Amino acid sequence: MLYENLAAEVEEAVRRGVFAVGERVPSVRQASTQYGVSIKTVLRAYALLESRGLLETRPQSGYFVREMPAAKPEPPAASQPPPVASTVDVSRLVLSTLRSIRSHDATPLGSPYPDPSLFPWRKINQLANAIARRHSSWNLIDDLPPGNPELIRQIARRYAENGVPVDPDEIVITVGATEAINLSLQAVAKPGDTVAVESPTYYAMLHAIERMGMRAIEVPTHPAEGINIDALAKIIGEHEIAACMVMPNFQNPLGFVMSDANKQRLVELLAEHDIPVIENDVYQELYYGDARPSTLKNFDKNGLVLHCASFSKSLTASYRIGWAMPGRYRRQVEKLKFLNTLTTPSVPQVAVADYLKQGGYDHHLRHVRRIYRQQARLMIATVQRFFPAGTQTSGPMGGYVLWVELPGAVDSMKLYKAALERGITIGPGTMFSSRDAFRHFIRLNYSYPWNTQTEAALKTLGELAASMAGRRQHER
Amino acid sequence: MLYENLAAEVEEAVRRGVFAVGERVPSVRQASTQYGVSIKTVLRAYALLESRGLLETRPQSGYFVREMPAAKPEPPAASQPPPVASTVDVSRLVLSTLRSIRSHDATPLGSPYPDPSLFPWRKINQLANAIARRHSSWNLIDDLPPGNPELIRQIARRYAENGVPVDPDEIVITVGATEAINLSLQAVAKPGDTVAVESPTYYAMLHAIERMGMRAIEVPTHPAEGINIDALAKIIGEHEIAACMVMPNFQNPLGFVMSDANKQRLVELLAEHDIPVIENDVYQELYYGDARPSTLKNFDKNGLVLHCASFSKSLTASYRIGWAMPGRYRRQVEKLKFLNTLTTPSVPQVAVADYLKQGGYDHHLRHVRRIYRQQARLMIATVQRFFPAGTQTSGPMGGYVLWVELPGAVDSMKLYKAALERGITIGPGTMFSSRDAFRHFIRLNYSYPWNTQTEAALKTLGELAASMAGRRQHER
Repeated sequence: MLYENLAAEVEEAVRRGVFAVGERVPSVRQASTQYGVSIKTVLRAYALLESRGLLETRPQSGYFVREMPAAKPEPPAASQPPPVASTVDVSRLVLSTLRSIRSHDATPLGSPYPDPSLFPWRKINQLANAIARRHSSWNLIDDLPPGNPELIRQIARRYAENGVPVDPDEIVITVGATEAINLSLQAVAKPGDTVAVESPTYYAMLHAIERMGMRAIEVPTHPAEGINIDALAKIIGEHEIAACMVMPNFQNPLGFVMSDANKQRLVELLAEHDIPVIENDVYQELYYGDARPSTLKNFDKNGLVLHCASFSKSLTASYRIGWAMPGRYRRQVEKLKFLNTLTTPSVPQVAVADYLKQGGYDHHLRHVRRIYRQQARLMIATVQRFFPAGTQTSGPMGGYVLWVELPGAVDSMKLYKAALERGITIGPGTMFSSRDAFRHFIRLNYSYPWNTQTEAALKTLGELAASMAGRRQHER
Repeated sequence: MLYENLAAEVEEAVRRGVFAVGERVPSVRQASTQYGVSIKTVLRAYALLESRGLLETRPQSGYFVREMPAAKPEPPAASQPPPVASTVDVSRLVLSTLRSIRSHDATPLGSPYPDPSLFPWRKINQLANAIARRHSSWNLIDDLPPGNPELIRQIARRYAENGVPVDPDEIVITVGATEAINLSLQAVAKPGDTVAVESPTYYAMLHAIERMGMRAIEVPTHPAEGINIDALAKIIGEHEIAACMVMPNFQNPLGFVMSDANKQRLVELLAEHDIPVIENDVYQELYYGDARPSTLKNFDKNGLVLHCASFSKSLTASYRIGWAMPGRYRRQVEKLKFLNTLTTPSVPQVAVADYLKQGGYDHHLRHVRRIYRQQARLMIATVQRFFPAGTQTSGPMGGYVLWVELPGAVDSMKLYKAALERGITIGPGTMFSSRDAFRHFIRLNYSYPWNTQTEAALKTLGELAASMAGRRQHER
């Protein structure tokens, strides 16, 4: 059985990104020395991994990590929400779901956060400590809104390097993207107003609408192409829309990236009607392709795009550093920031600025992107293996969540409760809508280390879903 | 001149709280050894300090630090605002004032913050570092609203020890008291509603009203007794009042403490009309008397008191840890907290909890209270010495700010600008009203180390004020 142990070890190393896709694994001779096993054992282990599709041989070159076959998931159909504005009240459900994943024992498939063990927390904490020591009498006044100047400069630099037009004076530092989104919405709309959102939409958008006592109208959204711009145009013609909120890149929960053409069309349509658009771009750094995708800012000629992002998904969640680039609403957002929380704590601001200045961020990002891309494929393959017939999944182009459509008979809230009893959390689909839609959908997080517990949890979920699908069909 | 140097050194030690009021200073013999000067020099130095009123001799006992004579300031008259609700727009003025004190060279008489060098920052940072190390993968989910359980327990313990009725389940941790006040107001009133406030009122209260698009109505307020409850009753009879916001203890800027009888009357009056009251108690630990004063919570039978406080004035400003005890509005406040900023960063929450658990907070507080009380008296005496005739000051019973009424002809915004050119900041009175009132008032911070720069700044301010008072009188 020795070769199976070795195979498991190599497989784990591949999954953790030690050996990246397309890279060569140690030669048979090297591996024999390294792991202290015979040549024969290595050969059997590599053959096993080859048969599982994880490695491939190249003549004269050795064994390489195979690209996981890009799953061709049958994507869920585009949503067709009725064009009706509704009040929003999803926060209690979301809060109770988040609380349920507080247990460190549960398999955190329901978590909205990336695996924190992937963050370079040691480096960041060291920087924060050095800063706290340096500034014995550091006080609040130093980094009043808009925020620490060096941090703002570093953020602007990254945008510039990625081809996003940016004016550092436009950036306002916030307590995470949550606050950036809240302030942006408050700057452009008032209680009672109607806001157009994707369907499904990331619940933080719904929270912002709920917080201000506004109404949401859901726009049909294609799981691979994003918000349906024709449908949006029709809604604008029929309703008074105060603002639009979208996530054009790696949308949570669908994972799509809007094409440049569609981004431009969206910005132009809204500009025609003078409607501001809040762009949530928190996954900007977690792309699986070759480069960061464009943003709505790239197409904004009128200052109507309020762009929001943060470091919480890509660098450190606990520091709660986000920002807004609110276009022509910059003064209002800065003022609201001051009114809302006075200031964003200084030391975390400076620590992140120092980290960005030192370099190493891109290296860190390349590492996590590789892991997320590989685990996306594993997650899709495993769901396809264990879930009942009729299950369909998204094909995320970045980020770390998968959207799963279960057979129509499965109630995701019941599945959520049954899974929780077995120590597994999931994100029920109803969190992503103001209209109690997506009842047979769930969101799964694949950022955490992939191991036998993950596979067992997905098997259990699949069995639960199958039994619920069957039971309901039987009941009919 | 040696004895003058020694006198200056002893005086500085007294001012920094090394020798507290009522304590014995080193005996003549001890001082002679300690400072390496002759007995005669010590005697001359002590005689000088006695003549200045800083020391007193007691027969057979030695030299003692004299209680600074409690200044008997002529307090400003009670305010008489017209009973008219008005929209609020003071945040730009406040933000620009705060920015102006960002320069570390300026004499920070305009700062709203306590001297950060008095905080036990070294201890707190050590604790934070230890926590960050312990929890390599600390994440946001651990301390979701209402907040870290141990921190909540520690806060509840201090209330219980101080005779304030408290249920730990009522406490919600926030990003500073600013957020606690914002969420509390949002929980009880809606845009367009009218909120009763003190006059002058702490501008954070006005910010909360401005943020929500509500209206403020200012209630006559006595500089030593607080809000005029009869006047408030009349306003309630004539206006629809959605909420009341007060600072019963060490009000900023007036410094009064409402009597228990008045606190009870206020709570009962509001209960009669079912009006919630937001109590800002951020200076609770900075009393000059023997014990922490009571709160409105002590008299609340109906859950209508939303009590807000923080550690920013007494322990650490940069960690931004505050809390609300929102009575019957607890569920709404918790939900709004979640919607507003998701969560308060974990490490600062746990660091503060650890600090409170270890003990040492009371020792630290006794030290800063002694300094603030002494410096309050110095500030009053120095203002009386340098400012033009007709100047009157508050008599703060805690906290670290003094409210100064200048001759009516002085425009505090002009004084603010003229002072700023000379490297001195002050808080112009107009920040404390929604009606552009208090134009000839200023607020002065006396928490910073008292030194010759402070005295020189006050002398300059006095001269500027005198010239403005004279010029205007001349212009008439």
